Amino acid sequence: MSLLVKGGTVVGPTGTRLADVLVEGEKIVAVLDPSFTPTITANEVIDASGKYVIPGGIDAHTHMEMPFGGTSASDTFDTGTRAAAYGGTTTIIDFAIQRTGEVVQDGLAAWHAKTEGECHIDYAFHMILGGVDTDALKAMDQLVTDEGITSFKLFMAYPGVFYSDDGQILRAMQTARANGAMIMMHAENGIAIDVLVQQAIERGETDPIYHGITRPAALEAEATNRAIALAEVAQDCPLYIVHLSASQALAKVAEARDLGRNVFAETCPQYLYLTLEDQLGAPGFEGAKWVCSTPLRSKHESHAKDLWKGLRSNDLAIVSTDHCPFCMKDQKEMGIGDFSKIPNGIGGVEHRVDLIFQGVVDGNISLERWVETIATTPARMFGLYPQKGVVQPGSDADLVIYDPNGTTRIGVETHHMNMDYSAYEGVEIQGRVGTVISRGEVIVADGNYHGRKGRGKFLKRGLSSYLM
Amino acid sequence: MSLLVKGGTVVGPTGTRLADVLVEGEKIVAVLDPSFTPTITANEVIDASGKYVIPGGIDAHTHMEMPFGGTSASDTFDTGTRAAAYGGTTTIIDFAIQRTGEVVQDGLAAWHAKTEGECHIDYAFHMILGGVDTDALKAMDQLVTDEGITSFKLFMAYPGVFYSDDGQILRAMQTARANGAMIMMHAENGIAIDVLVQQAIERGETDPIYHGITRPAALEAEATNRAIALAEVAQDCPLYIVHLSASQALAKVAEARDLGRNVFAETCPQYLYLTLEDQLGAPGFEGAKWVCSTPLRSKHESHAKDLWKGLRSNDLAIVSTDHCPFCMKDQKEMGIGDFSKIPNGIGGVEHRVDLIFQGVVDGNISLERWVETIATTPARMFGLYPQKGVVQPGSDADLVIYDPNGTTRIGVETHHMNMDYSAYEGVEIQGRVGTVISRGEVIVADGNYHGRKGRGKFLKRGLSSYLM
Amino acid sequence: MSLLVKGGTVVGPTGTRLADVLVEGEKIVAVLDPSFTPTITANEVIDASGKYVIPGGIDAHTHMEMPFGGTSASDTFDTGTRAAAYGGTTTIIDFAIQRTGEVVQDGLAAWHAKTEGECHIDYAFHMILGGVDTDALKAMDQLVTDEGITSFKLFMAYPGVFYSDDGQILRAMQTARANGAMIMMHAENGIAIDVLVQQAIERGETDPIYHGITRPAALEAEATNRAIALAEVAQDCPLYIVHLSASQALAKVAEARDLGRNVFAETCPQYLYLTLEDQLGAPGFEGAKWVCSTPLRSKHESHAKDLWKGLRSNDLAIVSTDHCPFCMKDQKEMGIGDFSKIPNGIGGVEHRVDLIFQGVVDGNISLERWVETIATTPARMFGLYPQKGVVQPGSDADLVIYDPNGTTRIGVETHHMNMDYSAYEGVEIQGRVGTVISRGEVIVADGNYHGRKGRGKFLKRGLSSYLM
Amino acid sequence: MSLLVKGGTVVGPTGTRLADVLVEGEKIVAVLDPSFTPTITANEVIDASGKYVIPGGIDAHTHMEMPFGGTSASDTFDTGTRAAAYGGTTTIIDFAIQRTGEVVQDGLAAWHAKTEGECHIDYAFHMILGGVDTDALKAMDQLVTDEGITSFKLFMAYPGVFYSDDGQILRAMQTARANGAMIMMHAENGIAIDVLVQQAIERGETDPIYHGITRPAALEAEATNRAIALAEVAQDCPLYIVHLSASQALAKVAEARDLGRNVFAETCPQYLYLTLEDQLGAPGFEGAKWVCSTPLRSKHESHAKDLWKGLRSNDLAIVSTDHCPFCMKDQKEMGIGDFSKIPNGIGGVEHRVDLIFQGVVDGNISLERWVETIATTPARMFGLYPQKGVVQPGSDADLVIYDPNGTTRIGVETHHMNMDYSAYEGVEIQGRVGTVISRGEVIVADGNYHGRKGRGKFLKRGLSSYLM
Repeated sequence: MSLLVKGGTVVGPTGTRLADVLVEGEKIVAVLDPSFTPTITANEVIDASGKYVIPGGIDAHTHMEMPFGGTSASDTFDTGTRAAAYGGTTTIIDFAIQRTGEVVQDGLAAWHAKTEGECHIDYAFHMILGGVDTDALKAMDQLVTDEGITSFKLFMAYPGVFYSDDGQILRAMQTARANGAMIMMHAENGIAIDVLVQQAIERGETDPIYHGITRPAALEAEATNRAIALAEVAQDCPLYIVHLSASQALAKVAEARDLGRNVFAETCPQYLYLTLEDQLGAPGFEGAKWVCSTPLRSKHESHAKDLWKGLRSNDLAIVSTDHCPFCMKDQKEMGIGDFSKIPNGIGGVEHRVDLIFQGVVDGNISLERWVETIATTPARMFGLYPQKGVVQPGSDADLVIYDPNGTTRIGVETHHMNMDYSAYEGVEIQGRVGTVISRGEVIVADGNYHGRKGRGKFLKRGLSSYLM
Repeated sequence: MSLLVKGGTVVGPTGTRLADVLVEGEKIVAVLDPSFTPTITANEVIDASGKYVIPGGIDAHTHMEMPFGGTSASDTFDTGTRAAAYGGTTTIIDFAIQRTGEVVQDGLAAWHAKTEGECHIDYAFHMILGGVDTDALKAMDQLVTDEGITSFKLFMAYPGVFYSDDGQILRAMQTARANGAMIMMHAENGIAIDVLVQQAIERGETDPIYHGITRPAALEAEATNRAIALAEVAQDCPLYIVHLSASQALAKVAEARDLGRNVFAETCPQYLYLTLEDQLGAPGFEGAKWVCSTPLRSKHESHAKDLWKGLRSNDLAIVSTDHCPFCMKDQKEMGIGDFSKIPNGIGGVEHRVDLIFQGVVDGNISLERWVETIATTPARMFGLYPQKGVVQPGSDADLVIYDPNGTTRIGVETHHMNMDYSAYEGVEIQGRVGTVISRGEVIVADGNYHGRKGRGKFLKRGLSSYLM
Repeated sequence: MSLLVKGGTVVGPTGTRLADVLVEGEKIVAVLDPSFTPTITANEVIDASGKYVIPGGIDAHTHMEMPFGGTSASDTFDTGTRAAAYGGTTTIIDFAIQRTGEVVQDGLAAWHAKTEGECHIDYAFHMILGGVDTDALKAMDQLVTDEGITSFKLFMAYPGVFYSDDGQILRAMQTARANGAMIMMHAENGIAIDVLVQQAIERGETDPIYHGITRPAALEAEATNRAIALAEVAQDCPLYIVHLSASQALAKVAEARDLGRNVFAETCPQYLYLTLEDQLGAPGFEGAKWVCSTPLRSKHESHAKDLWKGLRSNDLAIVSTDHCPFCMKDQKEMGIGDFSKIPNGIGGVEHRVDLIFQGVVDGNISLERWVETIATTPARMFGLYPQKGVVQPGSDADLVIYDPNGTTRIGVETHHMNMDYSAYEGVEIQGRVGTVISRGEVIVADGNYHGRKGRGKFLKRGLSSYLM
Repeated sequence: MSLLVKGGTVVGPTGTRLADVLVEGEKIVAVLDPSFTPTITANEVIDASGKYVIPGGIDAHTHMEMPFGGTSASDTFDTGTRAAAYGGTTTIIDFAIQRTGEVVQDGLAAWHAKTEGECHIDYAFHMILGGVDTDALKAMDQLVTDEGITSFKLFMAYPGVFYSDDGQILRAMQTARANGAMIMMHAENGIAIDVLVQQAIERGETDPIYHGITRPAALEAEATNRAIALAEVAQDCPLYIVHLSASQALAKVAEARDLGRNVFAETCPQYLYLTLEDQLGAPGFEGAKWVCSTPLRSKHESHAKDLWKGLRSNDLAIVSTDHCPFCMKDQKEMGIGDFSKIPNGIGGVEHRVDLIFQGVVDGNISLERWVETIATTPARMFGLYPQKGVVQPGSDADLVIYDPNGTTRIGVETHHMNMDYSAYEGVEIQGRVGTVISRGEVIVADGNYHGRKGRGKFLKRGLSSYLM
């Protein structure tokens, strides 16, 4: 069974070309100059004229069904991966969780159980270590060697839940340095933040906006600097800062990279478009929609502009979503009268490809960086390359045919995520996901869904391409 | 009773002048141009021709009789303040200690009890907070208001002993920001260091040099950065980094100061002259003599050169000693076979004035900076100005007549500290403390001691002159 | 003849004290504790109770009678030094000028001729070198050795007038490094600026505001960086940046100082209070009043705030005025229809002491930094210390009794400068110059003038106190 | 006529893949998964098993036959491009020259005349502007629009020869900003350097090493900073720093890039491997072999290490050679007794691909960065992409089959450049250029040459891919 994607402009990290893509089964088998294509036959032909052909999006940071404060993220692997597919994302890397006192492998098994037969697109796991101890350190080796889990996330925030102290972080980094894994870091000084939160609550500052005010940029920058320093002590262990939101934190990453350090970072669409005042500070309890950590930052500072700059300069390597949706009803509402009880998370797995393409339209990044930050670099960063993230022979036939002349209007009425609101309600994108192909199979076409639950496969990952 | 110091060159923070100093009782009552002096009569005249007349040294960081790991620093307030006087220091600020679970005021009372009737020179206290809680925060206010204690030291190292977590630090900083006190910080990431120490011991790396190797400069810089960030969150609470030893930590201080932040730092003579390799790495157990924290740094890096630069540029404001002597016999020896059991500390209260004058001789700092870093700035920083730290009418008559043409040879045979070794054995200084006057009384002259135990008075301190 | 200034609070660079000052003839002969004063007799007593007693102000940057574009600065040494005296300044350092092709010593002689018998207060000269060649380099040595001229100003702007190329600058710096002189630099890239000016004029952008727009901050920062680099190549020749106005230039100075370099800078009151938009952009031709170079900077950036920060951190050492007044009538008017023909300069020699005291009132700097930046540091920087700049025995009796409870309203009706407008019209200062004493003589009291033309003396200067 | 390169590992900027490359005529028409290749037929098959298949090298900085001080670079376009081909370089971008007073188009015509019928590989031109005036600015537009010349090089060094002053630079940058061209900059402060050179000669310091000593790193960093500032004033005109050699200059580039500026830089192999002391300081006159500008830097500093770091972090985007060979005999010898008369230049066009591959072997850069810095980025930077610099359908079939298991020994006996010495004599590389294909034609195979003079074509270039 062969499929020919014909007439499109293939966009890759170094530029664009008019080229045709031949798929056999699940794989790309040839990339062809249009002059040569007539010599080729295929069972099926898709016309991509006037469209971009890009590698399927890879969202390296999702939390489907994640338990949080007595509830769970509202998207299951079923609903979440289907929504992702609609938005041009054909791979997610979700976070399996070990909590303090739990056996790491048990946490991993739980995530395999959650995902088994559920996913519409391919998926892999990072592992959250919520309790770094001798057993967990051993488990890191085993997961790298046997399980295809090559990245481990630690938290400098959430004491009593996921928090690791600096000694635990250092030990995990030493282990990662030895086995080649990547350490991912939630970099906020949670110990200090919890003081600010408690003081705010005591002062009666309970509205959603105080969620942001009690998590100042200075404490994201501090934790970022600390993570970088600990990685240095661990013999330059590779380090990846998740959901970077503040200019000051970006400056720390840039400083480390100027020194040649193996430090990487991602940001998320919410930090590029949404702000403390306009969203988190919305009247009444509405701001709860945008409670996430790290928080949205002030529009009176230059965060968003600086983050786009970081995406251009590669101090920010990747755009992920940190997709972790909670409905307003019953879920976000748990925090009425006390922002600290609002489940933390924004849903956006469906909109990342579009929202970052808007950055191309707006002149913030190049077409090449669009593809690189949403697909190629995630694949390379997390050991999925060259199976994923690139349009070339031998790679999985994960393709998105993207229409730069289409438009996309985001809203709760039309999105496919299991959320009772949209974080981007009414936003209009100048561009549109057309056909989505996952391992050679057309799963979205003209807004209609042709995939099915359970077709997505678990991906064992290798080590990062950036490991030196 | 009046005393005239005549013919000397008075050195102050902005320059030198030929001037005579008239003392009445305990106070300076006039500074006179030599042309005018003949109109003045005095009971006693000291000829200071060819000598420098400087304000008595103020050592803002000593630990007399400090309990540590089952023993105590070997200098009592009696022996230590007498040795200080010999070396041209007429005021010390020692650290009273509250340990976790103790009442702050009880700790202070204990230090008043230790010092009562013992000191040869004037003294004041900083307060170490080893257990920041609600009571301790209230005690901070009371000590500032009633007790003349206006600076509080916290530790980012020594978990389980003095360590405060970042939340405790933040709360103490907020309290200090409100009551005007200064927060002093031992800035090393002790949580990470303890991992390195344990790993080294497990590998059999037990010699004294591993004390230094397990406390890398990166972890001093990290903690320095973190303290600065927490002070920023605390509305720019004034912050004073103690015993700064590493270039990288200095860079963090300089960066904060460039931003206009109220951040200050001291270094100590040991970091200006001694190194990881030559002292801490001395053969066998001899390196134990130089076990102190922060540790001596590598001679293969530019730490000492950078610290002198910092003293010139005022990124380092003060030279203190962190005087905390332990004898080799019975004390340092507790750590044979395990460097982590060696009591931490170097004695040097007697040599600071000389060792920093050597920096003038060597062209590292100016004469003015010598006086400023050993006397004037300590007084201003810690609320003793203008009573101390300056040669001017109205100030206490604490004066040192310093002979730039004399020489001083340092060694255990000649020093007056209660130590069975000298950290600077055999070092020769081109300069010599001559006469030392404390509140109008000659206590050292020609190497002979004329003071007495108990003559030193407790000084209630005001707020820092640098508070803005 | 003796004079006793009694009951005042003497303010010095390290703090304040209640002290009395005894003057004999032209000199201070004693500083006295009030308790001791009763033993002293004096011919005259001035009551300074409730007032500050500070060293007379030193304005290290004035251009009296300076020829510029066919006219001359409107203040003569007579009118200008009298106005300075009114404002609490008792010493100026003016700029003698050598133009290309002129003999340096002839330029100096011309300035001696202009000042002879004219000045109301003491004065010294820097030397502008407009034509660095072999003879000029030799002249530098002679001026340092014989003439008391120890600082030389070069221009990176004004091609064809004062401009030196980088080779000339380097040679002059090498000479200065050898003979101990200070190089002062007008740091703007005049070659690039002249292109922007010409282009603006060609586009018909002729209003005064384009004077500022064509001299962007980036070109001040560039030249500042270049001057610092050339000084490095000249073996760390001491360098003093004049009239620094831009945040970006300040950052270059701070960076150099962090590296321990002998780099210093001054700013001027106009950059602390006035802006591109509000003054230079005033309607019609009024903006011409504020045409000076470096220009006023945009209020939409953080220049003024950063400059106050620099004054606190000592990255800015001195506040001078760059006093160079031109009347609107006949002078500034030369540039109607072409901003590039407007004589460059603002008059302010009379208001510096007040305007910087306002910074104390506003909480921007401390009382100590006020005195340091307007008097003590200028004296130390330019080899007038300890004769000037400090209240201590042996120094010239240049004193200002300043009333912190008075007020000063600035305006053309009341000022004493020869200007037909005021750059600070209507500004009200919370503080007031009371009595002004110059070498023991009361020259201003209660707003009345008691001095006289010709009483000011030329001061031969020594090398900078900051030379290391 | 078709050619199949089979069994090799294609290396691109994002990674490696086993893939076969099908060439038809001069173009790549398909990249194929080996599983699919059997369906394809080709006239000729080359076995690349165990080898890397990379895009042909692009040397973006050569000076064939360049006139310099009365002689000319010893490689003609014939000998130089043939040597390049031997070394795996299939495109050069040489510099056409306009001197002061010349018509730009005449300079370009001269280079077309020199190259006509001479080149073995494809070639393009940058244009050196030695005399920026109104005509030259107009010519820039014409060259961009009509001639395929889209980059213009200016010199901050060589006064009287190529030097442009800052006003000329600014005007050229403004023009480039408008027409989309790239400004390339030789960033050394030549005005200051010429002073140092003259002083050295006067002191009798005439050996080759003084060439380096009189061109200090500080003056490269200064000029780099200045070029960046001028580009900022020109509305962020894209700027490309050529032959960057000093850590301090790299820091300026990194700083600008952190700010999101369109600033790029190249370095050259000589700065990665050779040093001031070991080569330029060779005994007698031998050091003349390595006289080039910017000069080799001191091995006692960290330049080479920092440059490799810059290649990793992309602060250095490209490795070019600045190939400008002169023979020792008759050419370099012109400078015996006066280093300033030694023709400036090192030859290396033949060795770049190998020397940078050695960086992969040594662990300094990744395989991907090797290809990116020697081929892909030069193509993208200078408007040759996607025709050149990438292995993909539609691109020119410029391919190098590189044997990582081969070895290359560099020396005058074996090289093909017209030089009577080798700058890298005796250096052994772990890797070897095998087959070289230029537009579908095998021109080098097994060390034998199959190309011919005149087959190389002139390439009209488009605008830079990095233009935003």
